[in-house]
Amino acid sequence: MSQDSSEGYSEGDLRGTGMSLKHDREWDYELDRITEAVAERDAEMVGLQFPEGLKRRASAVTDDLRAELPEDVTVMTSGQPCYGACDLDTYMMRRTDVFVHFGHSPMKESEKIIYVPLFSNVEVTPIMDESLSELADPDDDPDVGLVTTAQHMNKFEEMREWLEDRGYEVHTRRGDERLTHEGQVLGCNYASADVDADQILYVGGGKFHPLGLAMEHPDKHVVIADPVNNAITVADPEKFLKQRYASVHKAMDAEEWGVIFCTKIGQGRWDQAQEIVDDNDNAYLITMDEVTPDRLTNFGFDAYVNTGCPRITTDDGPQFKKPMLTPGEYEIAIGEKPLEELSFDTFHGTW
Amino acid sequence: MSQDSSEGYSEGDLRGTGMSLKHDREWDYELDRITEAVAERDAEMVGLQFPEGLKRRASAVTDDLRAELPEDVTVMTSGQPCYGACDLDTYMMRRTDVFVHFGHSPMKESEKIIYVPLFSNVEVTPIMDESLSELADPDDDPDVGLVTTAQHMNKFEEMREWLEDRGYEVHTRRGDERLTHEGQVLGCNYASADVDADQILYVGGGKFHPLGLAMEHPDKHVVIADPVNNAITVADPEKFLKQRYASVHKAMDAEEWGVIFCTKIGQGRWDQAQEIVDDNDNAYLITMDEVTPDRLTNFGFDAYVNTGCPRITTDDGPQFKKPMLTPGEYEIAIGEKPLEELSFDTFHGTW
Repeated sequence: MSQDSSEGYSEGDLRGTGMSLKHDREWDYELDRITEAVAERDAEMVGLQFPEGLKRRASAVTDDLRAELPEDVTVMTSGQPCYGACDLDTYMMRRTDVFVHFGHSPMKESEKIIYVPLFSNVEVTPIMDESLSELADPDDDPDVGLVTTAQHMNKFEEMREWLEDRGYEVHTRRGDERLTHEGQVLGCNYASADVDADQILYVGGGKFHPLGLAMEHPDKHVVIADPVNNAITVADPEKFLKQRYASVHKAMDAEEWGVIFCTKIGQGRWDQAQEIVDDNDNAYLITMDEVTPDRLTNFGFDAYVNTGCPRITTDDGPQFKKPMLTPGEYEIAIGEKPLEELSFDTFHGTW
Repeated sequence: MSQDSSEGYSEGDLRGTGMSLKHDREWDYELDRITEAVAERDAEMVGLQFPEGLKRRASAVTDDLRAELPEDVTVMTSGQPCYGACDLDTYMMRRTDVFVHFGHSPMKESEKIIYVPLFSNVEVTPIMDESLSELADPDDDPDVGLVTTAQHMNKFEEMREWLEDRGYEVHTRRGDERLTHEGQVLGCNYASADVDADQILYVGGGKFHPLGLAMEHPDKHVVIADPVNNAITVADPEKFLKQRYASVHKAMDAEEWGVIFCTKIGQGRWDQAQEIVDDNDNAYLITMDEVTPDRLTNFGFDAYVNTGCPRITTDDGPQFKKPMLTPGEYEIAIGEKPLEELSFDTFHGTW
């Protein structure tokens, strides 16, 4: 047997990719849409961008495309990190005739980009059935908010009907313009859970999204029905909140601040960054795309404010050598706001 | 005493920055040139880019600039990695009125960029005196090639005269259009050592440059006179050559190849990348700016060819999980060239 854990699995099975899924998944890469766009535009350069967990499929998707496309068409894949819709490879977008972004829904429609959503085909009702044990009985409290991620959006109406059939009144909304779909959440936007219900059912893979949801809505009971890992949990942001308080406290002693402006599409909060620097002589503006511990180490500031992706700050924060705060947390650290006002940082608007 | 090793040192002293220098250095950031450019262009946005080892000076340089500049001018620093002239932050260049790149000489002149060279003020003759023990006596072999880095270029004529005074015939040249100065070497270009001498004296800090020099010119005796660390050594590329052979051997078993095209200015060898992909059905094009182990891991190719910076391949190669080869090494691994033709990969031309 090979030591390579990715071998021996069938196409579309992500068990070897570090995503540790319990269910096989097959993805529809919508190659027809891509080959049609190439023909229409008489394209010579095709750029593909996959999320991290699907980068391993680049060669197979390229093979399939090469078989369909004229021989003089060059297919290339982005090697830039990709964890969300913000991570658009704009270099590749500018330099290819057809640019395909897989696995995330558009934050803003663009003719330049073909978005291929990659819907999961995993069944959602078995795990929803188990989630009833954590939801209030509909006779006691029929109101439930329903949210999911782009990946499971194809099953959203099925989820809603399933809950309604069991006597729940399902509250959903399209949060704001940053979100493509009704009921959709992003790591940085939970406006679709701003509904008139004390309990929210999140149906989807992983804890990344529901953790943000619980931090943004600490007053709500957030039940996580994970059909991918076949697990029910109730979101508990306490550990993360403690980490946030600890970071804020540590940063209170900071003399010099690095203020990060992220240059990625959808993450640029320029006014906020500039205001911080204008108001604090000991704050210095740093611009960058990927915000990583390595990149900040050499600056040696005492603390950082990250006006870019809040999930880098809250989830990756402990990996950074110096405290990194969200803009709201920064206001607390410098004494402009009381500690009680600590809240989760979210993003609204599009590019 | 503070635990922070950067404290207690004077401005310009890099002992606390991880560069482990034995001599203090003061740098001239040429702030007048910057303030003049701001006034001339009526600039509102000033962008600064420092090499990694000087990023810690960002706040002090910004303070000095803020004191001189009108209040409505915003000064920002690039947080992108910066190890050489290729690492120009083109995002910042496009979005600022005055863009300053510190510490590297231009690979190509551009009106958009103010290059501030940051010459070292360390004395070079004491260590050159010690280097005589490793050079042939001028009565036996008077011919010596002389090279240095951008940082010590201000002392180049002094070095030449010092050697001539001791009876040497000093051979120097401006290698090619990639190099700004006569006698200058880059990590990827040693054309200035293509001189009619069997021995080369490299005067400069660190082993990075002379190691490349010795790999590019294995027939020459390369003496390293390091005035920064006060050390004399003779370059020995054997360990690195062994690593290269080992990587080529490992890659011979590869089925699927990732072919890296680097999107940085000065590193794009598009024709070479495309040719590899055109000629090998199991080769797949990946485009990226920073080439790091993390970014390649999720692709899971058996081996990689890096058409970008050769020093990532040769110096950082062992940190990557799969073998990464230069284009020439790739030809050997797939059997198109004999192993004896293994040579150091260099870059010529400008952007």
